[in-house]
Amino acid sequence: MTAIDLNADLGEGFGRWRLTDDEQLLSVVTSANVACGFHAGDAATMRRVCELAAARGVTIGAQVSYRDLAGFGRRAMDVPSAELAAEVAYQIGALEVFARAAGSRVAYVKPHGALYNRVVHDEEQAGAVVDGVLLADGSLPVLGLPGSRLLELAAKAGLPAVPEAFADRAYTDEGTLVPRGREGAVVTDPEAVVERSVSLARSGTVASHSGARIDVRARSLCLHGDTPGAVELARRVRRRLEEAGVRVEAFA
Amino acid sequence: MTAIDLNADLGEGFGRWRLTDDEQLLSVVTSANVACGFHAGDAATMRRVCELAAARGVTIGAQVSYRDLAGFGRRAMDVPSAELAAEVAYQIGALEVFARAAGSRVAYVKPHGALYNRVVHDEEQAGAVVDGVLLADGSLPVLGLPGSRLLELAAKAGLPAVPEAFADRAYTDEGTLVPRGREGAVVTDPEAVVERSVSLARSGTVASHSGARIDVRARSLCLHGDTPGAVELARRVRRRLEEAGVRVEAFA
Amino acid sequence: MTAIDLNADLGEGFGRWRLTDDEQLLSVVTSANVACGFHAGDAATMRRVCELAAARGVTIGAQVSYRDLAGFGRRAMDVPSAELAAEVAYQIGALEVFARAAGSRVAYVKPHGALYNRVVHDEEQAGAVVDGVLLADGSLPVLGLPGSRLLELAAKAGLPAVPEAFADRAYTDEGTLVPRGREGAVVTDPEAVVERSVSLARSGTVASHSGARIDVRARSLCLHGDTPGAVELARRVRRRLEEAGVRVEAFA
Amino acid sequence: MTAIDLNADLGEGFGRWRLTDDEQLLSVVTSANVACGFHAGDAATMRRVCELAAARGVTIGAQVSYRDLAGFGRRAMDVPSAELAAEVAYQIGALEVFARAAGSRVAYVKPHGALYNRVVHDEEQAGAVVDGVLLADGSLPVLGLPGSRLLELAAKAGLPAVPEAFADRAYTDEGTLVPRGREGAVVTDPEAVVERSVSLARSGTVASHSGARIDVRARSLCLHGDTPGAVELARRVRRRLEEAGVRVEAFA
Repeated sequence: MTAIDLNADLGEGFGRWRLTDDEQLLSVVTSANVACGFHAGDAATMRRVCELAAARGVTIGAQVSYRDLAGFGRRAMDVPSAELAAEVAYQIGALEVFARAAGSRVAYVKPHGALYNRVVHDEEQAGAVVDGVLLADGSLPVLGLPGSRLLELAAKAGLPAVPEAFADRAYTDEGTLVPRGREGAVVTDPEAVVERSVSLARSGTVASHSGARIDVRARSLCLHGDTPGAVELARRVRRRLEEAGVRVEAFA
Repeated sequence: MTAIDLNADLGEGFGRWRLTDDEQLLSVVTSANVACGFHAGDAATMRRVCELAAARGVTIGAQVSYRDLAGFGRRAMDVPSAELAAEVAYQIGALEVFARAAGSRVAYVKPHGALYNRVVHDEEQAGAVVDGVLLADGSLPVLGLPGSRLLELAAKAGLPAVPEAFADRAYTDEGTLVPRGREGAVVTDPEAVVERSVSLARSGTVASHSGARIDVRARSLCLHGDTPGAVELARRVRRRLEEAGVRVEAFA
Repeated sequence: MTAIDLNADLGEGFGRWRLTDDEQLLSVVTSANVACGFHAGDAATMRRVCELAAARGVTIGAQVSYRDLAGFGRRAMDVPSAELAAEVAYQIGALEVFARAAGSRVAYVKPHGALYNRVVHDEEQAGAVVDGVLLADGSLPVLGLPGSRLLELAAKAGLPAVPEAFADRAYTDEGTLVPRGREGAVVTDPEAVVERSVSLARSGTVASHSGARIDVRARSLCLHGDTPGAVELARRVRRRLEEAGVRVEAFA
Repeated sequence: MTAIDLNADLGEGFGRWRLTDDEQLLSVVTSANVACGFHAGDAATMRRVCELAAARGVTIGAQVSYRDLAGFGRRAMDVPSAELAAEVAYQIGALEVFARAAGSRVAYVKPHGALYNRVVHDEEQAGAVVDGVLLADGSLPVLGLPGSRLLELAAKAGLPAVPEAFADRAYTDEGTLVPRGREGAVVTDPEAVVERSVSLARSGTVASHSGARIDVRARSLCLHGDTPGAVELARRVRRRLEEAGVRVEAFA
């Protein structure tokens, strides 16, 4: 029997603003990528999400980002390595307080937005993120894209490197994501997303953009929580995975 | 033989800006109140100051503040208790990462600026700061003004409450500080500051504004590091304390 | 025939976050209090709201605030007068660019949140807001609470002082607002809000909390846009005002 | 008789922090690039610098930047065009208030730091900066590097495009700047800087890195104000220019 983790971004409000339906998503996912205040997530929200996650047995991860509230962490930034490493560690430490206070702990790290995309290829920034994780905790798993520089450097540094897949994103024949903006980059049909989730979890394969069956080894599936119908779709994915005999459980 | 701690605010730059001469001050003080990013202190600076402090055996404390970079934490804010508690915990957690990475730990908490002044009398905010400390660590000492609501509530919550004194500030006959702005509120003559330091450390007394000798029980003396001549004065205070047979050592 | 203005807060998102239904509200109100970036409102949102407002002939006002994104400007702050005046002027100037580019102009100023409440009684901050308005434009009307220090000082400085009323807030017999949190402070029955709007506009009176009929002279009614059903209620208020023979038009 | 402008970055503090010696520099330069709050520069500082500049007859320019206080605007950012244009306009508008209040006006725009470097080659961001300037004022000169995309697009849009040169930077044979970090990129000998200034102003030529004499047509020389000895060097440059018969005057 195979196992898969379901992760989603949570706590992505700030002050007066809300984005993610944290309560509902926490009843579906097994890993919560909690925003740490740099692209979203104020201290009170971080505390509340950690309490909810801990109460439901959902694993807590630090969703680290560029320091960019105005851009929601979606604008790539040329941050010098030493600064970036320290900023990553800062965010992990801040979240750790709330995870511990809730009787849990920060169990993994996942970069957000533009930083996530940048460390797929950028050696320097990928290394800085790994340095930041090491500053905080030398045994913390890193969640990211299979084949990314981030996962390579994390593994080289002795950190567990955990690959994830996206059931609602199209893949090229080479197993990379079809860039957003390209036609068909996002899979919008809910049933297709559900089927792709089951396929990714059970066989580690998925149909590529061209129709070929390709390997996408992932220990976690990333669900999106900030679109209408997102929670309902997430529930459906989880139910179908369980019906297909997949064990839905956190990787960490 | 009596003992006294010397504390000073450190790491109070931000990004491109510097304020405190961290290296020099760390060769004098026994406790470093490190800014945690809310009124000053970026992640890279926090890391560097923690490394320097750990290397020199200086105790690291979290200098927590209102979230107010533009006002340097000097503008009182009506922050709801739950938000303030979470913001205090957030700052402690962020600093803890760098203290641990340097082989040390956050050993106490001291509020900064307007928050420091507010929690002298404000029951609600004092309670929120204590709640924030408890969220982070139920055994962390709190450094503040003797007789303040903060120290009372910290003690009530089981946290070590550590009183501090200011050798360069005038005291009223009741043992409170003469408010800044009032004539003679700040002692500017270096030799007077040195003598008051020795008196505070050895006898726990100091001459009040009116000339009366009053009790000011303090386990730590706060030195200021952001004025010209500050480092030289701090060195002189330390030397004279040692010559007077006072053991200069951290309280935590 | 009597005339009344309808104002509402607009553009209160930030980056990825949205709060107010700007498009819908702009089809109802005659004056738009546009957030200027200090409590909400990024540059791109300010531009868009100004374009929409100008296209619909809605008057543009600068909704100035404390610098506090994390607290949405709802936390009172002790900002020194010179800083506050400069911050108010900064916000007006930033908005003016977008109002002008859209073929309109900033036609009035209204403080937001905690600043709005503070300048009802606080002489110093009220004076600072007036100074800020004068820095930007010596003829700009100021919108606020009747009897507030803000309107008094604005009038004294030669600025048009425009009083507003709240149809969904209870009034004391003295004509001041029943503080939020007190029972019955907010009028939740839509029909009651509509009737009070008409009464305020036509006769300049409203039933107080105790049932007495009191005078509330207002040239504008403030509608709230950030609650469910807000837009629908605003439409109903406007329709009923027009049916009652009230001319709904901007004051500026 | 030839004329040259001397420009320098001013008002680059924030809140408690200071960087540039604004008063001294304003006694030397003819154009002040005033920070507008995005990389540095709070509202009160902007006001003060505008008052000082206006009192001394120094022309005021808006030094626009990425929104990045933590990085001092030195970290390149992938800001979408519409956001960047709006952010540029926002900064110009905010500064305009203080320039007008001081009896002057914003007379030109110059990008700062990473944005300055980016718009040398980046078509999209250069276009966004021009769009932002046009939003604010369709006749505002843009100050930048000769041959940059920024100046090309500004000219195409009908804005005066004003080229500047750096007397303390080495040039390649092609007339571009030798990148910082490369050996000899910065000219540190004060006398050399002075001589290069006179040469740039009088003949529009300078010795390249390889020793060849190259053309660098500039209407303004950029002086640096944030290094020790900067003010003294700036004074010397100005004196020698005047002795050499060059008219030192603002371009705008």
